[in-house]
Amino acid sequence: VNLESFVKYRKSELAADVAVISDTGLFAPGMPAITYGLRGLLYVEVKIIGPAVDLHSGMYGGAVPNPANVLCELLATLHDKDGRVNIDGFYDDVVPLTADERNEWARLPFDENAFRDDLKLPGLFGETGYTTLERKWARPTCDVNGLAAGYQGYGAKTVIGATASAKVSMRLVANQDPEKVRQAFERTLGARCPKTVRLEIETHSGAGPVLVPREGRAMQLAADAIKTACGREPVLIREGGSIPVVGLFKSVLNVDTLLIGFSLPDDGAHSPNEKFSLKHSLYLGMQVCGALYDRLSRLTASP
Amino acid sequence: VNLESFVKYRKSELAADVAVISDTGLFAPGMPAITYGLRGLLYVEVKIIGPAVDLHSGMYGGAVPNPANVLCELLATLHDKDGRVNIDGFYDDVVPLTADERNEWARLPFDENAFRDDLKLPGLFGETGYTTLERKWARPTCDVNGLAAGYQGYGAKTVIGATASAKVSMRLVANQDPEKVRQAFERTLGARCPKTVRLEIETHSGAGPVLVPREGRAMQLAADAIKTACGREPVLIREGGSIPVVGLFKSVLNVDTLLIGFSLPDDGAHSPNEKFSLKHSLYLGMQVCGALYDRLSRLTASP
Repeated sequence: VNLESFVKYRKSELAADVAVISDTGLFAPGMPAITYGLRGLLYVEVKIIGPAVDLHSGMYGGAVPNPANVLCELLATLHDKDGRVNIDGFYDDVVPLTADERNEWARLPFDENAFRDDLKLPGLFGETGYTTLERKWARPTCDVNGLAAGYQGYGAKTVIGATASAKVSMRLVANQDPEKVRQAFERTLGARCPKTVRLEIETHSGAGPVLVPREGRAMQLAADAIKTACGREPVLIREGGSIPVVGLFKSVLNVDTLLIGFSLPDDGAHSPNEKFSLKHSLYLGMQVCGALYDRLSRLTASP
Repeated sequence: VNLESFVKYRKSELAADVAVISDTGLFAPGMPAITYGLRGLLYVEVKIIGPAVDLHSGMYGGAVPNPANVLCELLATLHDKDGRVNIDGFYDDVVPLTADERNEWARLPFDENAFRDDLKLPGLFGETGYTTLERKWARPTCDVNGLAAGYQGYGAKTVIGATASAKVSMRLVANQDPEKVRQAFERTLGARCPKTVRLEIETHSGAGPVLVPREGRAMQLAADAIKTACGREPVLIREGGSIPVVGLFKSVLNVDTLLIGFSLPDDGAHSPNEKFSLKHSLYLGMQVCGALYDRLSRLTASP
């Protein structure tokens, strides 16, 4: 939580030509990548407050607003039937994908059926008109990350819970502003929430999206380093996650970040049994980093 | 869970003219009541099963169906904008309130504003066209009693939970059949659930609604006993809760039940600090029961 103030306070000592972060991945084994876009994040908690205490659903059911029902009804309004996020003005600042990006990504070896089957999903779902890679990398989202209301134990309890709450996060893309989206979210839900209950929205965190220029001297040097170490050009991709410090480096230090990482899609990041391949990731990463820092040492010498 | 088979097995030993259950309430202090209607219950658990494991909402968000979102969208379809339950055929077997019942209940001293304020609710909500007493006593419901999905702890976790589940109960009124409603619920949700996830519905319990004839010899004797013990006639009311054994006595033994109880609306049934008034409930109940059993001893003697 102190990182932002630290970067601001040490701004002059942190002056740099470029930053390098290895927290992204290869596109596939043997297929190195430079990531030039990250999604941002707005994470909120939505709470519906109804009766003063939990109520017996037989004695009160049908005659009082039920916070759990109201919460579901509110959250159900967050998407339209085409999978688009239904928050007023949500897409106003979204930078559309370019034709070049869409063409490049369409050529990447990505199998939607295998992706679906790996997850054991009966089907995929997302915004109409976009491929899975486009949905993951370049389109904003609104996901319910947690629901809590009433009785959750084994069996049945005929209770109308006094409150119900949800954790909701929105992945943002350039140039959406977390603060502006937060205000739109609060305004939209405030207008939709019935007046029979109270609505509270708390913000847990926000981080801006990142879109690094695909051209430039540092990018050229990085591509050359990767080609030397791996024997092939890197692909230029985006990732769907967020690395908030990248935006901080840009806004406070005016420094772009090279995102060159070595994890694989099936590493299980943040999951049980997370792995990191010695051959495909660790040794390759050592080679690339050696070549990369060698070249970056000449970044300012030869403009 | 063995009560039903016990009653069936001991049917001949349990033969009786009438049953008496004191599990209901006075309408208000000093205002005794005979309850002639109870709501039934169907309690189910709805589970949405999505990806094989919890997923990182940055890496996958927007490209996979999120069970928590799908659950909210499904549950939001359970009511229409008039507060009516939106399950196909749900109201088919509902016995409408008679004009007599509505007139009698309208004369009961019930203050909707005080009811709302006691619960600290900004407003009441229920099926359009009915009073609060009618909604509580004589109209069926569909309440979400529990929600569980994803991360529920302090702060934030950017997860798309593999599953999401809800406990849902429906209070039923005469002559809704729990099994028929269960089939309608499963059919309706099955048709509405997107094919990108799997839907499982488990039934926890079912109990039929009860509507006892308001006339008859036992009713007369009970009213007379109450008048003698309390100095005033009982009011005839219904209650919103369920007492499943009443339906069992009727269906297996063909025995009607006199529902004469002594709790007060503010006793906090099934809640912390539940109370039972010595003066208004216990001593009054002793007087009524003495008079009642004395009269019931003559039930079959003088048809």
